[in-house]
Amino acid sequence: MYIRQEDKPREECGIAGICGQAEAANLVYLMLYALQHRGQEGAGIITSNELGFNAVRGTGLVADVFDENKLATLFGSVAIGHVRYSTTGPSTEKNAQPLMVEYSRGNLALAHNGNLVNAEKIRNTLVQEGSIFQTSADSEVLIHLLARSREKEFLEALSTSLLQMEGAYSVLLMNDDTLIAIRDPYGFRPLALGKVGEAYVVASETCAFDLVGAEYVRDVEPGEILLINKKGLRSHRFAPKPKRQAHCIFEYIYFSRPDSLIFGHSCWEARRRLGRMLAQENENPADIVIPVPDSGVCTAIGFSQEADIPFEMALIRNHYIGRTFIEPSQSIRDFGVKLKFNVVKEAVKGKRVIVIDDSLVRGTTARKIIKMIRQAGAKEIHMRLSSPPVKYPCFYGMDFPTRKELIAATHSQEEIAKYLRVDSVAYLSHEGMLKAMVEDENNFCCACFNGDYPVDFNERHEKSAREIVSKEMDQQRIS
Amino acid sequence: MYIRQEDKPREECGIAGICGQAEAANLVYLMLYALQHRGQEGAGIITSNELGFNAVRGTGLVADVFDENKLATLFGSVAIGHVRYSTTGPSTEKNAQPLMVEYSRGNLALAHNGNLVNAEKIRNTLVQEGSIFQTSADSEVLIHLLARSREKEFLEALSTSLLQMEGAYSVLLMNDDTLIAIRDPYGFRPLALGKVGEAYVVASETCAFDLVGAEYVRDVEPGEILLINKKGLRSHRFAPKPKRQAHCIFEYIYFSRPDSLIFGHSCWEARRRLGRMLAQENENPADIVIPVPDSGVCTAIGFSQEADIPFEMALIRNHYIGRTFIEPSQSIRDFGVKLKFNVVKEAVKGKRVIVIDDSLVRGTTARKIIKMIRQAGAKEIHMRLSSPPVKYPCFYGMDFPTRKELIAATHSQEEIAKYLRVDSVAYLSHEGMLKAMVEDENNFCCACFNGDYPVDFNERHEKSAREIVSKEMDQQRIS
Amino acid sequence: MYIRQEDKPREECGIAGICGQAEAANLVYLMLYALQHRGQEGAGIITSNELGFNAVRGTGLVADVFDENKLATLFGSVAIGHVRYSTTGPSTEKNAQPLMVEYSRGNLALAHNGNLVNAEKIRNTLVQEGSIFQTSADSEVLIHLLARSREKEFLEALSTSLLQMEGAYSVLLMNDDTLIAIRDPYGFRPLALGKVGEAYVVASETCAFDLVGAEYVRDVEPGEILLINKKGLRSHRFAPKPKRQAHCIFEYIYFSRPDSLIFGHSCWEARRRLGRMLAQENENPADIVIPVPDSGVCTAIGFSQEADIPFEMALIRNHYIGRTFIEPSQSIRDFGVKLKFNVVKEAVKGKRVIVIDDSLVRGTTARKIIKMIRQAGAKEIHMRLSSPPVKYPCFYGMDFPTRKELIAATHSQEEIAKYLRVDSVAYLSHEGMLKAMVEDENNFCCACFNGDYPVDFNERHEKSAREIVSKEMDQQRIS
Amino acid sequence: MYIRQEDKPREECGIAGICGQAEAANLVYLMLYALQHRGQEGAGIITSNELGFNAVRGTGLVADVFDENKLATLFGSVAIGHVRYSTTGPSTEKNAQPLMVEYSRGNLALAHNGNLVNAEKIRNTLVQEGSIFQTSADSEVLIHLLARSREKEFLEALSTSLLQMEGAYSVLLMNDDTLIAIRDPYGFRPLALGKVGEAYVVASETCAFDLVGAEYVRDVEPGEILLINKKGLRSHRFAPKPKRQAHCIFEYIYFSRPDSLIFGHSCWEARRRLGRMLAQENENPADIVIPVPDSGVCTAIGFSQEADIPFEMALIRNHYIGRTFIEPSQSIRDFGVKLKFNVVKEAVKGKRVIVIDDSLVRGTTARKIIKMIRQAGAKEIHMRLSSPPVKYPCFYGMDFPTRKELIAATHSQEEIAKYLRVDSVAYLSHEGMLKAMVEDENNFCCACFNGDYPVDFNERHEKSAREIVSKEMDQQRIS
Repeated sequence: MYIRQEDKPREECGIAGICGQAEAANLVYLMLYALQHRGQEGAGIITSNELGFNAVRGTGLVADVFDENKLATLFGSVAIGHVRYSTTGPSTEKNAQPLMVEYSRGNLALAHNGNLVNAEKIRNTLVQEGSIFQTSADSEVLIHLLARSREKEFLEALSTSLLQMEGAYSVLLMNDDTLIAIRDPYGFRPLALGKVGEAYVVASETCAFDLVGAEYVRDVEPGEILLINKKGLRSHRFAPKPKRQAHCIFEYIYFSRPDSLIFGHSCWEARRRLGRMLAQENENPADIVIPVPDSGVCTAIGFSQEADIPFEMALIRNHYIGRTFIEPSQSIRDFGVKLKFNVVKEAVKGKRVIVIDDSLVRGTTARKIIKMIRQAGAKEIHMRLSSPPVKYPCFYGMDFPTRKELIAATHSQEEIAKYLRVDSVAYLSHEGMLKAMVEDENNFCCACFNGDYPVDFNERHEKSAREIVSKEMDQQRIS
Repeated sequence: MYIRQEDKPREECGIAGICGQAEAANLVYLMLYALQHRGQEGAGIITSNELGFNAVRGTGLVADVFDENKLATLFGSVAIGHVRYSTTGPSTEKNAQPLMVEYSRGNLALAHNGNLVNAEKIRNTLVQEGSIFQTSADSEVLIHLLARSREKEFLEALSTSLLQMEGAYSVLLMNDDTLIAIRDPYGFRPLALGKVGEAYVVASETCAFDLVGAEYVRDVEPGEILLINKKGLRSHRFAPKPKRQAHCIFEYIYFSRPDSLIFGHSCWEARRRLGRMLAQENENPADIVIPVPDSGVCTAIGFSQEADIPFEMALIRNHYIGRTFIEPSQSIRDFGVKLKFNVVKEAVKGKRVIVIDDSLVRGTTARKIIKMIRQAGAKEIHMRLSSPPVKYPCFYGMDFPTRKELIAATHSQEEIAKYLRVDSVAYLSHEGMLKAMVEDENNFCCACFNGDYPVDFNERHEKSAREIVSKEMDQQRIS
Repeated sequence: MYIRQEDKPREECGIAGICGQAEAANLVYLMLYALQHRGQEGAGIITSNELGFNAVRGTGLVADVFDENKLATLFGSVAIGHVRYSTTGPSTEKNAQPLMVEYSRGNLALAHNGNLVNAEKIRNTLVQEGSIFQTSADSEVLIHLLARSREKEFLEALSTSLLQMEGAYSVLLMNDDTLIAIRDPYGFRPLALGKVGEAYVVASETCAFDLVGAEYVRDVEPGEILLINKKGLRSHRFAPKPKRQAHCIFEYIYFSRPDSLIFGHSCWEARRRLGRMLAQENENPADIVIPVPDSGVCTAIGFSQEADIPFEMALIRNHYIGRTFIEPSQSIRDFGVKLKFNVVKEAVKGKRVIVIDDSLVRGTTARKIIKMIRQAGAKEIHMRLSSPPVKYPCFYGMDFPTRKELIAATHSQEEIAKYLRVDSVAYLSHEGMLKAMVEDENNFCCACFNGDYPVDFNERHEKSAREIVSKEMDQQRIS
Repeated sequence: MYIRQEDKPREECGIAGICGQAEAANLVYLMLYALQHRGQEGAGIITSNELGFNAVRGTGLVADVFDENKLATLFGSVAIGHVRYSTTGPSTEKNAQPLMVEYSRGNLALAHNGNLVNAEKIRNTLVQEGSIFQTSADSEVLIHLLARSREKEFLEALSTSLLQMEGAYSVLLMNDDTLIAIRDPYGFRPLALGKVGEAYVVASETCAFDLVGAEYVRDVEPGEILLINKKGLRSHRFAPKPKRQAHCIFEYIYFSRPDSLIFGHSCWEARRRLGRMLAQENENPADIVIPVPDSGVCTAIGFSQEADIPFEMALIRNHYIGRTFIEPSQSIRDFGVKLKFNVVKEAVKGKRVIVIDDSLVRGTTARKIIKMIRQAGAKEIHMRLSSPPVKYPCFYGMDFPTRKELIAATHSQEEIAKYLRVDSVAYLSHEGMLKAMVEDENNFCCACFNGDYPVDFNERHEKSAREIVSKEMDQQRIS
């Protein structure tokens, strides 16, 4: 749940900000640490004081990017930060966030979680008019729209600019003395508001608040601009409520930490209910239920309780990761998986085992885990997934493989079971998934499951971008 | 279970070796990685090839000490390795293991897990006779005894030397082409033999075998010398079986990874039985059972199943540890604990909670965890420990605080409950603990619980040594 | 001459580029190493291949910024690079060069040496029109002018843009497949063209060519745009020759390496002639002539030969610099200077010594060197400078202190002698300096000596910028 | 002179110590920095305080081995330090100095410069008697002799032990509160005594004193033991003065820094006289005299003055060394030499050039330098060496190649000239070298020139050791 696996969808980032705290940088640093599971390949913090902005950005884990000396250069009582999954390849360095620019209204910094579907289009128009782009980040278009806006008032300019952007965006902006938090009208990505002492904090998940001792206040609302400075909090709606909202249901299923509130609701509870629902739909006799850690743990507990089959931690996770390990040249079979997991043989030997995972993307890792469990002597292995089959790519911020590579998009359930070499595989039904949620089912984006995309997009553009990235990665591998 | 906490007994090390594998260093490196929980402050590997020994030793985690370039310098098909908890202070650098010397029989390297009780005495005698000690490691006496032995045959010399050593030692030696594995006659510390392809491997725990694809063969026996070289395996007994053995029962309770076989038995099973036994002894109505991760997980599951109280993972662990974090100067309350754990509020709110941990040493961390659970809204909190009160220091390799600091040595159960601010605290009984074991109860050392030390020792010596260490650490803190 | 001292003017950078070489990045890396004396606090390289740009930029020495792995990511056969003195403070990170943007004509990278005098003015206009600035680098205005130009042809757009820029600029641009080298119409800063195999190279100094085995072809001409791609070399004039040129005479006096050709002439010869001229103007009886290494060596040899006074290397330089050294808390007197220099006592004891340096800025380091020579037993010390008094700040790329801090701007020669505690101090005359040059005297910018600024500027703007920087630095010191 | 070249003899180390200074470690650190030219591949410092010894040792330059945090762990007012050339290969790590042991008299640390000729013999005997060696360093035998001595008094034990050691040794010992400085009876290697405030310092060269502001007092005498502690200085002779002393004349020729006193005399003066003598012996018409920097500079100045031929710095040295540089795969011709030197073409073009170097070992680097000078257009090139031909290996601490590889041992002067492609080559005569010295000619060891070894040795042993080392290095290269 809070250590990412390779064979899982990857989200682009986590964001955090604070206004009105003498140690702004230190608190954002800790919040990023708590949000580390949302992005393990890069991190950055920008602060603002009277003399301007101060930035530290780099690649790697939060603990690798920052040290005491670097944090000490981040003067100022306003700060925003960002953790991300870098798309490897040529673009790595230049896409470091938060972004930082100087424009007609002064200095501006930006941290962004999500994905626009018309970024390319806006970008092309702007470039034709003389704009210069320094990154390939979607969010840079917001800055340019803002810079070109003829509205005199900042808030007007911002609102007008936002209305041109389509897709998913939870954004933090910072100018000289103000922290600005924004969520797109559909509210695809989470963004929560909290308070620590007199200072307001904003973060992708509330687990970031817990670490710094902040209280959760409420979510930044879809279509809301929140301006936070010394004078306090000011709320402004830039868009009317759309008929439906589109909270990413995958946040509950996999992304968020179970100890977070997401879209105002407990992720932990959601997962337990997903597990219970999965058990109701799949009455299969078995001796034990085991989770694929860490993401399957809560769900498996719910399943176990509902199905009344004992829960066991039979897959042990190795925790010293985020570091490079050298593989012997006489390759150890399934080395990558073994580095991460070990099976407790005594727990599974001779048993009928239900393995709980949240979802299958390519299925490659699951296949290796199943093999390890089989070799440890399990009699039967039944794979249960706490979400429906993932069949469609996401254009709102999750980094899924292309459709071709999504195992459920191209294979039947039987084929998948055969590929995984399990005795059976079963997914949670779409209805079951929605029933497990507290919120109204119309509030969710389930596009990756049912292809119902709340916001239209030009697939051709997105596709070509995706292909370039994968070409780049191939080149990396070859060279 | 496999990430150490501060407020827990600390063991001095894990050891691993291999003979007859072209990539000896790489495999030992991976085995040390699997044994990382036995020592996170230092690591080293020495290999042997025709031209001599090659060594890489350093401070920090395995992944920090070794990199591709360093591993590439470790030529040879025989290798031994070591992970350790360094006692901080002046002695840090010089105690890097494995040790490596040149003596009358050529080159010798040594890696050691355990603690001798007569090291000081032997050492004094040797020094008077002109021996030079380069480390303060107990195990260096073995090398000197060996060097001074007048026995012509190596095996004779080794046996005679070992018979002079009293206390706990699982030792790996390496000379030009032979790996030698030894366990003291009481078998305090574990040491297992495995096989991968044609090569033999030896390691403190079998989880190291799993990572490199080795099969467990058997334990190195108490009082046994195993010589492994190209010609194969040769066993030699240097001591008769003593009336009783003295397997460290704390290996089952806390030290070992649950996926390891310890003294030939499953650690995972032992913990589940400890949990069950604890439930039988303590019938307390409650809504949920939660473990202190990672060490309490298996036990809590056993407890939950026996007591039929739902198991929940309500304490979430942060996994990006083993790195330094900067604390804000306006201190966050209980910062250290928050960095490691977060409570799932929804899981404990309004509930009667049983918290399962393996043991209490000082109780300081437990107290902070309890406080977090209380603040999250738990109605009642009952602390249950899966071992009896720890009342006596260990002289066989575990780094407990002095008696004065052991909370159970100086406080009644009621006082402890009051200190922890729990509604009740209860320990597993001594009988319960032994009943949960598969082995005969006479096979265990339970000295830290009952003060029954299997091998005599001169407490005065040990004490003074301990005091010096703590003085050193004080000095560190001050400066 | 090739290790910078603290108490010297600092130039902003060195630049190098190549087109048409499979190992473009590696060669630029080596050229930057040869240009290291022009900037020791930051370095960067950007390359171009079919898939886009690749960048590595960082702080520190060239050898610290790049390693084998990083260079291996710099695909492409076109590359430009940059070394710089960072102005410490908040702006450090964002001013990393080369810059890299995407605009209406595609990708563009830029590396710049020099200083514009109307950057602020252009910038303000552009920002009002909606442009966004990411750095505080002067050169970013060129990119914006280019992006906003309505000229269809790139060359036209570039020419028009350049004509709006006033001041000193030697610039390298790179788009997908073309390297573009530009020098301002006055030719303030050097820029040389060379050839290695079939590939063209461009660099601030020719010493960069020597290291990679390239031949010097000619200088990029003032007012010239050179376009280099697969089709070869194309030259274009964007500005008519002005009545006078304005080669920075300080390049000969101090900045450049003596083994470089600067503005087409040997720096080594220029320095020797400066030394000879200085000797002609100052006939002072003495026993030995000693240089302040490294910058005074060539000059002192010329002086020694002309004055027929023996040359001695009595100041020994410590070469392991560019690293941090820890100063004892019971401060060693004049620690910083001692770390760099030691006096050969036997060489100066009882002697009348002439010390040759190129220039005095604040005079603080010279004072400490004089003190060391005095303590070593020199009978008389006569300071001779191979340039006239530095009295005016530079607005074309040299980072002099403000006028107030220039010792010669505020003190008489006698006062300077008294401050330095020398028996006499003498400067080379303005006429003598010009006579020592091969080029026509009208070709030089000598503004720092005589206040005759070839290109007008708005001092107020520049001043305020300067003050902000120094405020930032003060803040750094305080915190 | 103070940056080592590859194709030069290499000495094993430099040593420094201090007693009675609160910041002992910091001062030794700075002294090691000043002695960096005596060993660039490893460094270490050990300090002593009441609680024991504290050590920091590592590979690389002084600035790389130590940082503020590491120095802060070196408590105590007594300290010794060491810089060394590591013989690469398996033995690297274990030979880190200073050594540190515990023996019958307590703690002892040792730093050593030189080479024993009977180390192997003593070692074999000791090992037979049960001694254990942890390093392959010669000096470890001293510790063992000391540990085994039956003399009750430390000074007696030390004297008796030293008398068994044959060869070259300047040694620093440290026990709890005393710094002990020793020089062998022949005084092969330098060792100077100084004073800073109330504290005594000892170092291989006096340039170390200059950096920390210490005054030179006198040399530690051959055959003298100096004991320094709170009570002051105590001198003891352990050996009578031998008929002759044996100061290494190569210290004057190449090793030491010119600003050092060596054996009580100025190295700078010695080099200038060597240059003058060389000029007297070789009257060759020429236009300029140029040194190979840095070691040839002083000598070339002396030569220039005597021969009345202008001195020029026509070889420019690159100073950012001690770091790794990446060579392009399409190899640049003579890359290694070009990284270090560049020729000032204007200085040598059309000229008859005399190139001054101190000595030729293999001649490989000189050959490449000559080639560069030739390509720069020199009309004639005459190589002059300020020492006689090096024909014999050194067994007293200099790391020469084997005889087979010494170009002068196997080639005539004409052959050497042909190999180097110079118009002529000439060496300083043996008589000329001795005449240039201030000391009596009987005080020198000139064995590398004339094969007259002051102390006998068993060549077979030494040879085999040497061969093993070179085998190791071959293995390194292959792998």
